[in-house]
Amino acid sequence: MKAYQTMNKEELLIVKDELQKKYQDFKAMGLKLDMSRGKPSAEQLDISMGMMDVLNSNTSLICEEGIDCRNYGNLNGIKEARELLGAISEVSPENIIIYGNSSLNIMYDTIARSMTHGVLGSTPWCKLDKIKFLCPVPGYDRHFAITEFFGIEMVNVPMTEAGPDMDIVEKLVSEDAAIKGIWCVPKYSNPQGYTYSEDTVKRFAALQPAAEDFRIYWDNAYSVHHLYQDDQDFCLEILSECEKAGNPDMVYKFTSTSKISFPGSGVAAIATSEKNVKDILKQLTLQTIGHDKVNQLRHVRYFKDLQGVHEHMMKHADSMRPKFEMVIKTMESEFSGLEIASWTSPKGGYFISFESLDGCAKEIVQRAKEAGVVLTPAGATYPYGKDPKDSNIRIAPSYPTVAELKKAMELFVICVKLVSAEHILTTK
Amino acid sequence: MKAYQTMNKEELLIVKDELQKKYQDFKAMGLKLDMSRGKPSAEQLDISMGMMDVLNSNTSLICEEGIDCRNYGNLNGIKEARELLGAISEVSPENIIIYGNSSLNIMYDTIARSMTHGVLGSTPWCKLDKIKFLCPVPGYDRHFAITEFFGIEMVNVPMTEAGPDMDIVEKLVSEDAAIKGIWCVPKYSNPQGYTYSEDTVKRFAALQPAAEDFRIYWDNAYSVHHLYQDDQDFCLEILSECEKAGNPDMVYKFTSTSKISFPGSGVAAIATSEKNVKDILKQLTLQTIGHDKVNQLRHVRYFKDLQGVHEHMMKHADSMRPKFEMVIKTMESEFSGLEIASWTSPKGGYFISFESLDGCAKEIVQRAKEAGVVLTPAGATYPYGKDPKDSNIRIAPSYPTVAELKKAMELFVICVKLVSAEHILTTK
Repeated sequence: MKAYQTMNKEELLIVKDELQKKYQDFKAMGLKLDMSRGKPSAEQLDISMGMMDVLNSNTSLICEEGIDCRNYGNLNGIKEARELLGAISEVSPENIIIYGNSSLNIMYDTIARSMTHGVLGSTPWCKLDKIKFLCPVPGYDRHFAITEFFGIEMVNVPMTEAGPDMDIVEKLVSEDAAIKGIWCVPKYSNPQGYTYSEDTVKRFAALQPAAEDFRIYWDNAYSVHHLYQDDQDFCLEILSECEKAGNPDMVYKFTSTSKISFPGSGVAAIATSEKNVKDILKQLTLQTIGHDKVNQLRHVRYFKDLQGVHEHMMKHADSMRPKFEMVIKTMESEFSGLEIASWTSPKGGYFISFESLDGCAKEIVQRAKEAGVVLTPAGATYPYGKDPKDSNIRIAPSYPTVAELKKAMELFVICVKLVSAEHILTTK
Repeated sequence: MKAYQTMNKEELLIVKDELQKKYQDFKAMGLKLDMSRGKPSAEQLDISMGMMDVLNSNTSLICEEGIDCRNYGNLNGIKEARELLGAISEVSPENIIIYGNSSLNIMYDTIARSMTHGVLGSTPWCKLDKIKFLCPVPGYDRHFAITEFFGIEMVNVPMTEAGPDMDIVEKLVSEDAAIKGIWCVPKYSNPQGYTYSEDTVKRFAALQPAAEDFRIYWDNAYSVHHLYQDDQDFCLEILSECEKAGNPDMVYKFTSTSKISFPGSGVAAIATSEKNVKDILKQLTLQTIGHDKVNQLRHVRYFKDLQGVHEHMMKHADSMRPKFEMVIKTMESEFSGLEIASWTSPKGGYFISFESLDGCAKEIVQRAKEAGVVLTPAGATYPYGKDPKDSNIRIAPSYPTVAELKKAMELFVICVKLVSAEHILTTK
């Protein structure tokens, strides 16, 4: 294929006309597909239905410590759940607090608590003039939404294939005491599917922050969410690295089973140093008497252990893999040589990051929407919804069926080509 | 029986010696009973075990609106759960947001949000010099613990059998703009089991607060928790009263199924005006993607409707009634004429409020503890743990079996008499 940029105006107009016809045909089909969020498909949800059978009215709901899971108590979660979530998080159960169903809720609460009560005795953030967070970009919109809500200034840090640009992170964190945190999705990152390199994790652990209450917000959302049995990313465990580096309290690691069992009906946890755990529990004991222990028990009885989780996740992989492969294959065959697009090829997680020509992302998403395919809004992967180059689009292949996704990708390809051709034409 | 106060020193010393012997006998028994919290008993938990059977791997987890409860979404809860919790709260589903498992968590979050973001656009409380809450006393220690944690100054307001002293409430609320809320347990109050009178509720609804962001925190924890089928308290519905009085946004009403189904694995909700609902959802959408819809569905499929809840609660009543009656009968027969104690006789809820002679509550609780019966700490029913008269003890009869409770009450009676006799002796 000839690169669009090298075509002359007449060639491009022909391309554009053809694309426009195809686009109109698609519009006429009245598609209605949602690829906006990282939602598991119905097929994936079916994988976990066995979980609905592990507890019934004849089951003992007494956990290993002899506590009746039906009653109040166990603020930090039942022991076997802390063991299971500890194994998923690669930390020991002492470092785990089990919460409710949502790791996002834990992140929100962690920041809310820092605002009103500070971190390990430091000044509450609401008493300070300015608080800043580093935001590797492109990144996860719901992270950015929390910090924006609390009036925290967000500072973009470019992502590389090895993680955030650590030269920048080190410099900013060590120089500016207003920087209190950084949002990280270290494994199969949202939206790229990148995994932080060993060097990146070690540099994170060795940070020398100007602020004593600086914390790394390590959202380990996709720790066991591989696409392949024999080709998986590995990410160094951050808590132990921080401890080795003399910064034991510097990280909050978040996880949940939302994309392992059921989104919304899973179990979420924070993993952090025992000192932080103690600090958090002092607040948590005022916020609740305890989280849903029956659901914790349900998860442990169903998955049994980390091996059980891994086997379960391979069933998810079998459902997800064809979708990821189809999206990537489609883009390879449709875009190669045109020089109008690039994209990532993750080995896990929920997303593919797509880069259009500068200034085209918003229009591509808009065209797709008008023809019935909802993508994540362009800009969403940047703080304040502002993608400075207007080029990044997050592709979420999980929710539609393969057949639906195929149709959606056909349309996406047309939209990308059409908008790119139009864009280049304006400069000719 | 002769009143202790009217006995001479010799008579009292004889009484005291007898009691001391009995107390030592009890100590030797090595009892180990916990009456400290309002925890349902194992027998009560068994009542709800059928709930574990309503969902299984062959059940459809699609709710009435056609939404798959296993997946993300439905921030305010599934429709049928809003209907059920709405019926329990006596409001329409539009006024309901379903949360996770804990109404305490909702109250905490409501105050945390007011601290950082204010109420319906008002100044965030953390930006103000002083915030105060009115606390009807004796009251619920976990309420007081939340306000204390946020540095909110608590102002005691005496309780009457008809609810808080409304002359005081009206005066303070209308004069002091620093007063932003009042903690209420309007039905079968904690710890007295009082229910606010029609007049009290109407006066609440007609309050003219100096602060535009003043809210009534209406913890409707025991709305359907009656002891009797045919002798129940009734409490006027506060949302509609507030609306009638021209104060539609002035109340947050909290409820949960913690003491209907399983504590910790229930469903909690806030009921408030549609304007407040909208305001809250703006924040909630950043805090979580949604709460546990599978558990919402489990509750609705099990209880079906309000009638189902009422029938279920009568089974709880059958378990609780003998305990309450035994405690009250024991106190009547043991204390009448002695003039050393008074107590409430609730028709629902989880507690009985006990008043000793001034200056005796701490010592009574301590003696009981030393002989193996843990009561709610004296002082806990007052802000900052400070009962100015040191006379109130909250009795929680639900958790032990009737036989255990009988033993515990025997000990309690001895402790009350013994400490009272000793106390009077110091004045003779």
